[in-house]
Amino acid sequence: MTIFEKIATREIPAHIVSETDEFIAFHDVHPQAPVHILIVPKRAIPRISEAQPADGNLLGRMLLASREIASAAGLAEGGYRLVINNGPDAGESVPHLHIHLLGGRSLQWPPG
Amino acid sequence: MTIFEKIATREIPAHIVSETDEFIAFHDVHPQAPVHILIVPKRAIPRISEAQPADGNLLGRMLLASREIASAAGLAEGGYRLVINNGPDAGESVPHLHIHLLGGRSLQWPPG
Repeated sequence: MTIFEKIATREIPAHIVSETDEFIAFHDVHPQAPVHILIVPKRAIPRISEAQPADGNLLGRMLLASREIASAAGLAEGGYRLVINNGPDAGESVPHLHIHLLGGRSLQWPPG
Repeated sequence: MTIFEKIATREIPAHIVSETDEFIAFHDVHPQAPVHILIVPKRAIPRISEAQPADGNLLGRMLLASREIASAAGLAEGGYRLVINNGPDAGESVPHLHIHLLGGRSLQWPPG
């Protein structure tokens, strides 16, 4: 079980901000911005490169969920950046697909 | 019409790497990594915060398309980062939703 599955089952505590049957959103424990939330499917897809066609609609719903999660976090005006890391060059940290949602400061370019 | 719509209609040239009825992928003209491709829906959704529930499945298919686009660009081993900017703090550049796909070097953290 990945750390994210343990968060979803409440085996490991986290500051959860949103949850559906399909995914859970909680604050990153190593925040890189004033707001840094992870959106994670409960089903452990390892990474986007291993997602299957049947996962597409879930992935779309996770992207759409960022709208309400960002608004609830006070980012409706300033905006936010979504980031998905896949593989070693991207610094993929946990082999369980997750979307980073960052905001609350001016984010720089390039994105890493 | 945004610059991305003009690329989709071939009014403005671009180095296109992939195209479907729904979206087009091409190299960013200001690359921030050895590989920097944009995946853009042909229908001009301004930004993720204005996407509608009916756009979800398209967004999911765009995320899934990153798998083949990254592989074709030689990123299957090293991996890649996907980035979506929404609003001023994220440096959103064109009011037409697009997914940045970056790879070919070690990407840093934080992502901007």
